[in-house]
Amino acid sequence: MRNMFKGSIRTSVLREAIDAIRAIVDEAKFNLTPTGISVRAVDAANVAMVSLELPDSAFESYSVENKITIGIDLSKFADLLKMGDPDSICELELVDSSRLKIKMGSLNYSISLLEPSTIKRDPKIPEIELPAEVILKGSDFRRGIKASEPIGDYLVIEINTKPVETFTMETEGDVDKVTLSLTKDDVFSISVVGEEKVRSMFGIEYLKEISKVTSGADEVKLKVGNDFPIDISFLLGDASVRYLLAPRIEAD
Amino acid sequence: MRNMFKGSIRTSVLREAIDAIRAIVDEAKFNLTPTGISVRAVDAANVAMVSLELPDSAFESYSVENKITIGIDLSKFADLLKMGDPDSICELELVDSSRLKIKMGSLNYSISLLEPSTIKRDPKIPEIELPAEVILKGSDFRRGIKASEPIGDYLVIEINTKPVETFTMETEGDVDKVTLSLTKDDVFSISVVGEEKVRSMFGIEYLKEISKVTSGADEVKLKVGNDFPIDISFLLGDASVRYLLAPRIEAD
Amino acid sequence: MRNMFKGSIRTSVLREAIDAIRAIVDEAKFNLTPTGISVRAVDAANVAMVSLELPDSAFESYSVENKITIGIDLSKFADLLKMGDPDSICELELVDSSRLKIKMGSLNYSISLLEPSTIKRDPKIPEIELPAEVILKGSDFRRGIKASEPIGDYLVIEINTKPVETFTMETEGDVDKVTLSLTKDDVFSISVVGEEKVRSMFGIEYLKEISKVTSGADEVKLKVGNDFPIDISFLLGDASVRYLLAPRIEAD
Repeated sequence: MRNMFKGSIRTSVLREAIDAIRAIVDEAKFNLTPTGISVRAVDAANVAMVSLELPDSAFESYSVENKITIGIDLSKFADLLKMGDPDSICELELVDSSRLKIKMGSLNYSISLLEPSTIKRDPKIPEIELPAEVILKGSDFRRGIKASEPIGDYLVIEINTKPVETFTMETEGDVDKVTLSLTKDDVFSISVVGEEKVRSMFGIEYLKEISKVTSGADEVKLKVGNDFPIDISFLLGDASVRYLLAPRIEAD
Repeated sequence: MRNMFKGSIRTSVLREAIDAIRAIVDEAKFNLTPTGISVRAVDAANVAMVSLELPDSAFESYSVENKITIGIDLSKFADLLKMGDPDSICELELVDSSRLKIKMGSLNYSISLLEPSTIKRDPKIPEIELPAEVILKGSDFRRGIKASEPIGDYLVIEINTKPVETFTMETEGDVDKVTLSLTKDDVFSISVVGEEKVRSMFGIEYLKEISKVTSGADEVKLKVGNDFPIDISFLLGDASVRYLLAPRIEAD
Repeated sequence: MRNMFKGSIRTSVLREAIDAIRAIVDEAKFNLTPTGISVRAVDAANVAMVSLELPDSAFESYSVENKITIGIDLSKFADLLKMGDPDSICELELVDSSRLKIKMGSLNYSISLLEPSTIKRDPKIPEIELPAEVILKGSDFRRGIKASEPIGDYLVIEINTKPVETFTMETEGDVDKVTLSLTKDDVFSISVVGEEKVRSMFGIEYLKEISKVTSGADEVKLKVGNDFPIDISFLLGDASVRYLLAPRIEAD
């Protein structure tokens, strides 16, 4: 019997991809298709969604006979990937639908997979139009969230055009307040369509996990509306990652 | 209304100054005067006192209209200062007597201050004449204290002239003993006036916290008497820091 | 009265030697003889044995008048050695049979020794003939054990000649499995006498502690039999270290 899936990929690339999904969930279904791997998952509280596209071009070699879905325990997988040299090539092989072989140099793992039907169903990505967009450095996004952590539990993201185009991250605690403001010159691009400003508030715990992943990206694109989900997308090498995070309603 | 206080200072300098006070207390009153900032605080057990002088020359820019005293939660302040690049310039602004603005690059904090009357009163610095003095490397002072930690809870500091000028830090536990001895050649200067030797004993927990701060100083001056407080002073850039630590009585 | 023992040794060398014994026991008897120091100890469960030979050539200076045995609390000793610069020379002096002086630069410790009769008796090294031997990099041995830790509690070590000379470390958990396989070209040497393959299983906790020590060695020699103890030996500079670890019986 031929392998259902066989591929090889730089260990560091695979690690980053797994970490991107782990920011939201502990286990996930991986859809293997002839053109690449895709993952879509939503957290237990239905607040955050992640979508990962790992195209066959991200691999050194890649072959899938027929579309198949496998379930992976992400913590275990991440632990094992840490045992390999980040620069090594990681060889993956699906022997049957319940076992994955992982080879990094002289190290061979064979791990049991999760039954996909036991994992939360793939979310449907909602179709939403978001009027404002900013592209900024992943490290700046991370910095704004880290700076907010000692102050409070919610973070307001605002994009303004008046008086000048400004991207703001703001957290207000009971008595203290922090604001990170980046103007047009500090970001790659910024725009708002049809409104003067947009503003939505989010739970900082989710943003914290997400921003650990984005800090590895040169550019992060944020799409924002008024009390709408935020759409966070970026590239990790050939992989593309996207998060949708539901807003919290601000009490006035 | 004009600002009550406005100043800018290298973030790393401010961090070091705050850490020097935090070695002894969690909150403190800062006296802002036209020539600089001074802090004086004593710990809850009345065992250790810290005095910090941060002259206007330590700042890039500095202006105070009228003398004012503000109360600061040091842990919170230190946490926020960690969010800025150490080499960045930190801009401070006192809007009213209850709120401080802190700006580091694109990051803006606004924190509530403590009501000064709720903080322990400024201690009066006792006038004491101490007969012996040694100036040594901050790292040597730190080393002597670290080496004592596994052995016991008290540390004896002794300065001797006979047979040769010697500075000694000694801790005796139930069964073990450690001594750090530095002679004239190992220190910058050493002298005892009117006595052959002086010796006082101190709690190691206090010295531990203080020595973390002194380890950043090139030279630390210690003034010592017989069963008298120790006077520990040093410079951190333009700032001058001084600790007075009460002795423990040795049971013979 | 002359010193019973006096010696000086690079602090880092002494640290490594103490850490090698600490992998197995918390306290040990040190046999001081005119030609060097030897330690032999077995753990409380009688599963692992360590033997350390620290010849006088490992010392900068060394003198012992008459053979003497002293008892040392290894954790305390290791803690104190951390206080010295690793590149400094550590001077040791046995004043009487119950106190050891340790001098590292200006730092002087005097520690009480353990009464040797209170420490578990020196084990007799069993005479065993082991048919297979492999010499590999200490870092490879460490890697095989680290990679096994997330998978299970026991590790099988196998040396094979058919189809090609192969050294294998394998751990099988309830559902997952890991194998590190090194062939002739990956190791310094490999041989099996009189059998085609040998295989023994060991507790991973012991191997974990031992491999932390071996990771500092360029070459580690393993001698293996069929359900027999493993003999692990290597050099740390002039010191030679050897562990014997009893096998676990495999349930089929």
